[in-house]
Amino acid sequence: MTNTLQQNQMANAIRFLAIDAIEKANSGHPGLPMGAADIATVLYTQFLAHDPKNPRWPNRDRFVLSAGHGSMLLYALLYLSGYEDICIEDLKNFRQLGAKLAGHPEYGHAAGIETTTGPLGQGLANAVGMALAERLQNARFGDLINHYTYALVGDGCLMEGISQEALSLAGHLKLHKLIVLWDDNNISIDGEISLADSTDQCARFKASGWNTLKVDGHSQTAIAHAIEEAKNSDKPTLIACKTTIGFGAPNKAGSNKVHGAPLGVREIAETRIALGWEAEPFVIPADILDNWRLAGLNAAKRRQKWEEKLADLPVSERLEFERLMRGDLVGGFDSAVDAYKQKLVEESPVVATRKASEMALEVINEVVHETIGGSADLTGSNNTKSSQMKSITADDFSGRYLHYGIREHAMGAIMNGLALHGGFIPYGGTFLCFSDYMRPAMRLSSLMGLRVVYVMTHDSIGLGEDGPTHQPVEHLACLRAMPNHLVFRPADAMETVECWQLALKARGTPSTLALSRQNLPLLRQEYEEENLCTLGAYELLTASDEAQVTLFASGSELQIAVKAREVLEEKGIPTRVVSVPCFELFSQQSRSYQRALIGDAPIKIAIEAAVAQGWDRFIGCDGVFIGMESFGASGTIDDLYTHFGLTSENVVATVERELEKIEEEKTK
Amino acid sequence: MTNTLQQNQMANAIRFLAIDAIEKANSGHPGLPMGAADIATVLYTQFLAHDPKNPRWPNRDRFVLSAGHGSMLLYALLYLSGYEDICIEDLKNFRQLGAKLAGHPEYGHAAGIETTTGPLGQGLANAVGMALAERLQNARFGDLINHYTYALVGDGCLMEGISQEALSLAGHLKLHKLIVLWDDNNISIDGEISLADSTDQCARFKASGWNTLKVDGHSQTAIAHAIEEAKNSDKPTLIACKTTIGFGAPNKAGSNKVHGAPLGVREIAETRIALGWEAEPFVIPADILDNWRLAGLNAAKRRQKWEEKLADLPVSERLEFERLMRGDLVGGFDSAVDAYKQKLVEESPVVATRKASEMALEVINEVVHETIGGSADLTGSNNTKSSQMKSITADDFSGRYLHYGIREHAMGAIMNGLALHGGFIPYGGTFLCFSDYMRPAMRLSSLMGLRVVYVMTHDSIGLGEDGPTHQPVEHLACLRAMPNHLVFRPADAMETVECWQLALKARGTPSTLALSRQNLPLLRQEYEEENLCTLGAYELLTASDEAQVTLFASGSELQIAVKAREVLEEKGIPTRVVSVPCFELFSQQSRSYQRALIGDAPIKIAIEAAVAQGWDRFIGCDGVFIGMESFGASGTIDDLYTHFGLTSENVVATVERELEKIEEEKTK
Repeated sequence: MTNTLQQNQMANAIRFLAIDAIEKANSGHPGLPMGAADIATVLYTQFLAHDPKNPRWPNRDRFVLSAGHGSMLLYALLYLSGYEDICIEDLKNFRQLGAKLAGHPEYGHAAGIETTTGPLGQGLANAVGMALAERLQNARFGDLINHYTYALVGDGCLMEGISQEALSLAGHLKLHKLIVLWDDNNISIDGEISLADSTDQCARFKASGWNTLKVDGHSQTAIAHAIEEAKNSDKPTLIACKTTIGFGAPNKAGSNKVHGAPLGVREIAETRIALGWEAEPFVIPADILDNWRLAGLNAAKRRQKWEEKLADLPVSERLEFERLMRGDLVGGFDSAVDAYKQKLVEESPVVATRKASEMALEVINEVVHETIGGSADLTGSNNTKSSQMKSITADDFSGRYLHYGIREHAMGAIMNGLALHGGFIPYGGTFLCFSDYMRPAMRLSSLMGLRVVYVMTHDSIGLGEDGPTHQPVEHLACLRAMPNHLVFRPADAMETVECWQLALKARGTPSTLALSRQNLPLLRQEYEEENLCTLGAYELLTASDEAQVTLFASGSELQIAVKAREVLEEKGIPTRVVSVPCFELFSQQSRSYQRALIGDAPIKIAIEAAVAQGWDRFIGCDGVFIGMESFGASGTIDDLYTHFGLTSENVVATVERELEKIEEEKTK
Repeated sequence: MTNTLQQNQMANAIRFLAIDAIEKANSGHPGLPMGAADIATVLYTQFLAHDPKNPRWPNRDRFVLSAGHGSMLLYALLYLSGYEDICIEDLKNFRQLGAKLAGHPEYGHAAGIETTTGPLGQGLANAVGMALAERLQNARFGDLINHYTYALVGDGCLMEGISQEALSLAGHLKLHKLIVLWDDNNISIDGEISLADSTDQCARFKASGWNTLKVDGHSQTAIAHAIEEAKNSDKPTLIACKTTIGFGAPNKAGSNKVHGAPLGVREIAETRIALGWEAEPFVIPADILDNWRLAGLNAAKRRQKWEEKLADLPVSERLEFERLMRGDLVGGFDSAVDAYKQKLVEESPVVATRKASEMALEVINEVVHETIGGSADLTGSNNTKSSQMKSITADDFSGRYLHYGIREHAMGAIMNGLALHGGFIPYGGTFLCFSDYMRPAMRLSSLMGLRVVYVMTHDSIGLGEDGPTHQPVEHLACLRAMPNHLVFRPADAMETVECWQLALKARGTPSTLALSRQNLPLLRQEYEEENLCTLGAYELLTASDEAQVTLFASGSELQIAVKAREVLEEKGIPTRVVSVPCFELFSQQSRSYQRALIGDAPIKIAIEAAVAQGWDRFIGCDGVFIGMESFGASGTIDDLYTHFGLTSENVVATVERELEKIEEEKTK
């Protein structure tokens, strides 16, 4: 411990705001804020380029508290630095319903919270995404954007598998402006780390091309030296900061007892004595608060200089930069899509929707330059790389396509980081079945309301021979169950581009595009100016007379419905076909539209190569669902569709059976 | 290349079975079987302790093909070694519907397939579980069980985050009988590994306590030396085998073109010339096949010696070992549960179901000694460690409790490995919300039909202040959507032990127990000999007269239904309450039971602190669902339940509103 009294008191201000807020809430995690207070003090008072009065300044350094349970550390830092969003009353209201300061930091609740954290490891990968965004913008706008990204991680973040995916990609891309501060306190919830791990973390990071440093996490001078050194590295840096969890609590420091529960009145009193902190709860002595606020004002000077730099840009470049940071789409976007839709009608392509997605991306990426495409090592299968896209490499960040490697989970979280940073619209591909590998990241896209597009191909048993390990069955239902997430399953090339259009326009909602491996005919053969997928579900084909049957279907099964209708109509059974590309958008339509579309045909059948869960909203309780009730199997696509009854013949037979039942009922 | 002609031809036998089967199927992945044929030949002919005629021999070495897309490698090995389950016709039928030899290896399809692989990284973690099981059985039965576990992994397995979780735990536990062979071919689907990674894998493994070796993966002598060295290590070993993907194909070897598509007639012809292989497709020259079969017979001698060892055991010990390997439960299990149920009635405890789970485990673990408990660093929160359980450490494997660390994903896959090995019933805990982190492993439990129990506590907004990042909302629906997975959500201590009883008896199905953080009263206050949860749903409380209302609820919301019924009955509205601990078991009941239980009360309401998806099966389309439509929030439990309308008052008000609607309809 080599700190000056002032340095200690600056850090203690964090400690006691955390202690007192957690005690008042009777809930929270004091261990991390107390242990990491010195690290955070150094970072926020000496290094972080930010402006508390302009928290959205585009070139600010990003700080991610990956160990989100230590939320009071971040809240204390923001309050002390002078962020106006957070007043002392907010701190007193910590963890209460409706409060800005939730149990874990939540993006959008208060300025200065760069991302929602809590699920471990996510923040580290978000930070990789932010550091990548910085490099990408730097390649586009030069030194207008040249900030650092800092992340504070705990042992939990480093044990989660996602950390390996994220750090190995960061090392590979040499993201040297990424600095990770590891709160190396040797304690997890169950006890000492040695209960479950003996990894040499620095050696692990080094193995993936990182610079690593070790410091006493309670020596502010040592921490400052390390950050200085890290800033000069040509690699990303891990700084292992050896700390004591719950630093300052005489009886609980250094143990798991201080991790996730309030200290209690007695221990708090003793901690006040031990740390020489005489102020009342929630009171920061004026001289200490002044020092903190001064640090905030000093940091802000960099923003003022930056504004000059922005003003010096050619007008068109400045306007483009500002548009990107606002997240507005370019003016020409819709007309490019419309022209493409007209071309589709002329050419009537028979293509897989994954291929249709690539065709749509050719058009979109030509006008929307802020898309950053990628795939978890399935580029040729996901069809995610359009011809305009050059690969991003460690030596050249001017590209727009990232080979994420076989790292689905980090891909999701890195895309979240790209979206959070601003200036980009990320999309990334894998097989729909492997959405399971990145659900925690997809959930955070939804919770934060980020415009991230998940391109999920091979979306059913239609992928064929690879078999049940690769065939999604439950995944559509699982994604539809997630709040604030648009799940699109387009049926042809026309719906595919419409769904892409909607995904890019959904500024506050992530999207999943579920796309087929197999070829599909163009079913929407007339040009409609309106984007019909906006409705979520719409009538594709009317019945020739009062409908006896309505067939609902999505994606690759819509053609089955269309074929079945043809046969049924020939048999004199009036049949409608409703296309259902997006449950969530359908739910947003008026009740009258919903009722009218569902209609009152006596027979309602839904067809989807997936489990039934959720389809009741269309077919009601007496409807019939034709889909999957088990895992799939390995076989050719034709064999599989026949085996599982996903054929127009089976649909026709089912209708005839249902008609017989109705007749029987009548004659009873 | 230092191989003898015979060594080469032994390996070529694998290569051409793979090439020809993939060509015939017109689908598959030849790159790995061709590249790893030398490694596999050495392993199966010189090292693997197995008996093709007794493939379930308990002390056999386990071999896991973690890179499951290379399935033809495994199938060729099994055929060549003399496994009777696989004949040449099976190889010709590769990847066809109903074939034993699916696109990816599927557990249960043919003897010798130790686990289902394909989703990358899972097999490596399964192998860690098997190697752990070996140590655990060794600690219990001495050298009766002392085998090796081998895994063949590709670059994909090593890039997935789960690999880090699994390898760091294996290194920590010093699982020295685990030997991982890395098919280090420098190629992934997108192209060269350098597109996406530059990790020094050996350095990474070393950082977690592994022994690492590097060899020429086409020199059989070098491979044999390395395995020999690995067997003598006191740490788990990674052998980096430098190989050429698609070895032998003159134009495609060494590139991503050979990874996942048939070679094609012309390239096959050239490969035959290049490798000097003159036999027709699916024909193995007699001398080569003889050598392979001889190796199988030689390996089997070890089993014969082992049988003597088994016979030498004291009878009771032998019977116990055989019972464990069959997976039968001990005789006293049911009576212990019954006695505990009687005690519950007497004591009427008000406890969280997570605590009730611990109480049940105290009883269960006392008689069922094969349970291996654990938690992903939430032991005290998941209540997974009963008093009998000592922690497993690298120095002492006699314990029954594993601190998995903050590694949910590996926990799931390691539990799969424990179950696959045989002799154990694994269960592991985390928060229900973080089931997302291990869904790929849970899905494989279901697909393989393994008895693995997922103890998922903090199962709703009822966890309170930690907020929406930790509050499951969609997870129950997501797990219920998964085929062959029992999702239990018990409502009190009685249902909790009944659900545990069912989970342990479900030999071919994994289970999830969703458990509350908050205290719940005992609602089942009378002793029933029958396990009522077997029914999936049952009438907890009848209506005083012809039911006007049926309230369906699960878990912590059942008490809300019970309270609401009391008020409604007081108001003269006859109301039934149905408890719904398990959707899947309910679906297995007779249609007549289902119809009768659902009944025809004009008002049907379901209450669950989660999304509605799936509840239509109980409440139909006119029913009312009281639950969640969005993510949760940070706040006290009472504030949250009130805010989201999960109160008996809201249930009563809803009933009254529905009654008014019915009256209005009548008067129309």
